[in-house]
Amino acid sequence: MKIEDPHALHLPLSERAKNMKSSAIRDLLKVTARPEIISFAGGLPSPDTFPIARLKDAFDRVLSAQGKVALQYGPTDGYAPLREWIADRMSTDGVRIGPEQVTIVSGSQQGLDLLSKVLIDKGSKVLVETPTYLGALQAFSMYEPDLQSVESDDIGLVPETVARIGQGARLLYAPPNFQNPTGRTLPLSRRRELVAICARMNVPIIEDDPYGELSYGGERLQKMLTMNSAGVVHMGSFSKILTPGIRLGYVIAPPALSRMLEKAKQATDLHTSQLTQMVVYEALKDGFLDQHIPVIRRLYAEQCETMLAAMQDFFPPALKWTRPDGGMFIWVTLPRHIDSQQLFEESVAQDVAFVPGTPFYPANLATNTLRLSFVTVPRPRIREGIERLGKLIASKL
Amino acid sequence: MKIEDPHALHLPLSERAKNMKSSAIRDLLKVTARPEIISFAGGLPSPDTFPIARLKDAFDRVLSAQGKVALQYGPTDGYAPLREWIADRMSTDGVRIGPEQVTIVSGSQQGLDLLSKVLIDKGSKVLVETPTYLGALQAFSMYEPDLQSVESDDIGLVPETVARIGQGARLLYAPPNFQNPTGRTLPLSRRRELVAICARMNVPIIEDDPYGELSYGGERLQKMLTMNSAGVVHMGSFSKILTPGIRLGYVIAPPALSRMLEKAKQATDLHTSQLTQMVVYEALKDGFLDQHIPVIRRLYAEQCETMLAAMQDFFPPALKWTRPDGGMFIWVTLPRHIDSQQLFEESVAQDVAFVPGTPFYPANLATNTLRLSFVTVPRPRIREGIERLGKLIASKL
Repeated sequence: MKIEDPHALHLPLSERAKNMKSSAIRDLLKVTARPEIISFAGGLPSPDTFPIARLKDAFDRVLSAQGKVALQYGPTDGYAPLREWIADRMSTDGVRIGPEQVTIVSGSQQGLDLLSKVLIDKGSKVLVETPTYLGALQAFSMYEPDLQSVESDDIGLVPETVARIGQGARLLYAPPNFQNPTGRTLPLSRRRELVAICARMNVPIIEDDPYGELSYGGERLQKMLTMNSAGVVHMGSFSKILTPGIRLGYVIAPPALSRMLEKAKQATDLHTSQLTQMVVYEALKDGFLDQHIPVIRRLYAEQCETMLAAMQDFFPPALKWTRPDGGMFIWVTLPRHIDSQQLFEESVAQDVAFVPGTPFYPANLATNTLRLSFVTVPRPRIREGIERLGKLIASKL
Repeated sequence: MKIEDPHALHLPLSERAKNMKSSAIRDLLKVTARPEIISFAGGLPSPDTFPIARLKDAFDRVLSAQGKVALQYGPTDGYAPLREWIADRMSTDGVRIGPEQVTIVSGSQQGLDLLSKVLIDKGSKVLVETPTYLGALQAFSMYEPDLQSVESDDIGLVPETVARIGQGARLLYAPPNFQNPTGRTLPLSRRRELVAICARMNVPIIEDDPYGELSYGGERLQKMLTMNSAGVVHMGSFSKILTPGIRLGYVIAPPALSRMLEKAKQATDLHTSQLTQMVVYEALKDGFLDQHIPVIRRLYAEQCETMLAAMQDFFPPALKWTRPDGGMFIWVTLPRHIDSQQLFEESVAQDVAFVPGTPFYPANLATNTLRLSFVTVPRPRIREGIERLGKLIASKL
């Protein structure tokens, strides 16, 4: 038997495969998994928030009472009671969302893949903010679009730029709350402007919102979905409020678009685990999230506060950083002459890790930015890591 | 709030979306779900074979002992112990398969999607047998290939045709055992010929094998994978031997191709449920399948025998049908003048359902074929349904 490299074999690969990049972050997580490293690199939620006992109990109950249904093939658009539960929860601001608008997906990332299948042709114009979620860039890239960066400032997408360059775009990707990687939140006025502009140009907005529930103060800005549910596709996930390991998310879209997502999903993986959907419904139907989410918010708010305080104490004044109102990330802008990739290597040598900013730009624009995550590191270690990183940066000024 | 049709809104859809078809079978299953219907239409395994108690126990153990790991994000290529277990199980005929060749996927259907991402460009030549698995046609179609039908006879793909039309193809799709929809099995000699021909032309063979373990007699023909593991991609699934509702399968490929599948999977859904993988490993690691699979084989063999005996008794001699050595399906060829779609409607009116054959042909060739599944219908009902169907067909001769 010979096992060879497919390139050596001249296996006939697709164009997209030849251009495929692995996630810089997932690769980097392998480097930073050493226990001695203080890692601000992860995008993982805190496992202390996983309701293990409750889920165990729900698996028990579902398998005991409905094992044959839970373990059989299920409907492509999802388990009906869970779809109804999500539709009810998403019906806010006087707008009724129907279960026929809900497609259950195997995590938000799959929502991005299915939306790309339905909306993107090779060469299609696709608008993204800068910087933006790396996973979205990867998902879109599989369908070979013309990715165009929309100018973004401290509070997110600049609506005028969307109006100027958006005509003919297949979609605008717009995560509204505590965005990954910057932690910034799009203000209400900009949401309204973007919804109006995109409706006029007939460009669907993809409102990807995995962090929306993690507002430290509990405030919530109106979703773009409820400003125009015929032109906005909303994506949600159980990864940050329950557990990511089960891969469960959802897409809310106009009914006819939902039917297309259903067909695309049928071709992609038939359906999402029936068992997992039934268990999550079982675990959540009694209002559990109303007690659980505040616990996560409190924990993350304290972790964030600890990191911000340490940055205040230990980071040189030449640095700028965001002060998120929720979520899991702080975004740091270094003086222009410091390359964050280079800094990363020196920092890891001192057992502190973060994510360099360049992968979050579709065209690798800024080399002087980095992302810090604070949710999984014990608080004394946060101070220690930030102090060490601050000293390293100071040595370069 | 207005909810409108995306076409009415002129939402900018992709070309593939405009051409998307829903699975005729999944749509049909909705029609045939009425309890009074004797349905031979499903492709579902028998829920009587699901080891519910064992899985419940495994969920308990994994969540109790390793809850925080099981519920956290996991590696894109899969849970390492499960990958090793699969590699060991796939190492047969003196050929060693390494865990680095194994990618865990969310069901075989996802394997087809990922392989398409990596191998197919718009317009690429893709070879399929006739008739073939509908889900594969759907998965490939998302990437807009030029699907070419390879002549196939009672024992499957005709190697000479592959040699004649295969040059430059991106892949040959070749389910070897008890194929869906026909139940036919590719003989050893043809496997060897196909492997040799495709190696010469540098066309990867996709050996999709969800039914291979369900040989009634327990015999197993050598996998094409072990004839040339550098040129054959093997796909397996837990859907037919454990449970489909959890969505778990795997792809065995040359290591460098596996790395590409990993990148494609990262962009597609990050990873398959970590919890599910750990639970399946927990449930199977002690050799459970060695006791469990023979139980499924015996059940399906008896069900198949019942249906074949009934067909012998009640079907007019003008009909031809396959006699599978394993799996879940029998394929019927009617006299040419009978349209099986038309027959389906009349048959459902008499409370008997099957799947008309046309969707299994990429170019809708034969209108006089149909698929019967026997695994989920109680045996007296099998006889009753076949008798009724036989009379209906006889009335048309």
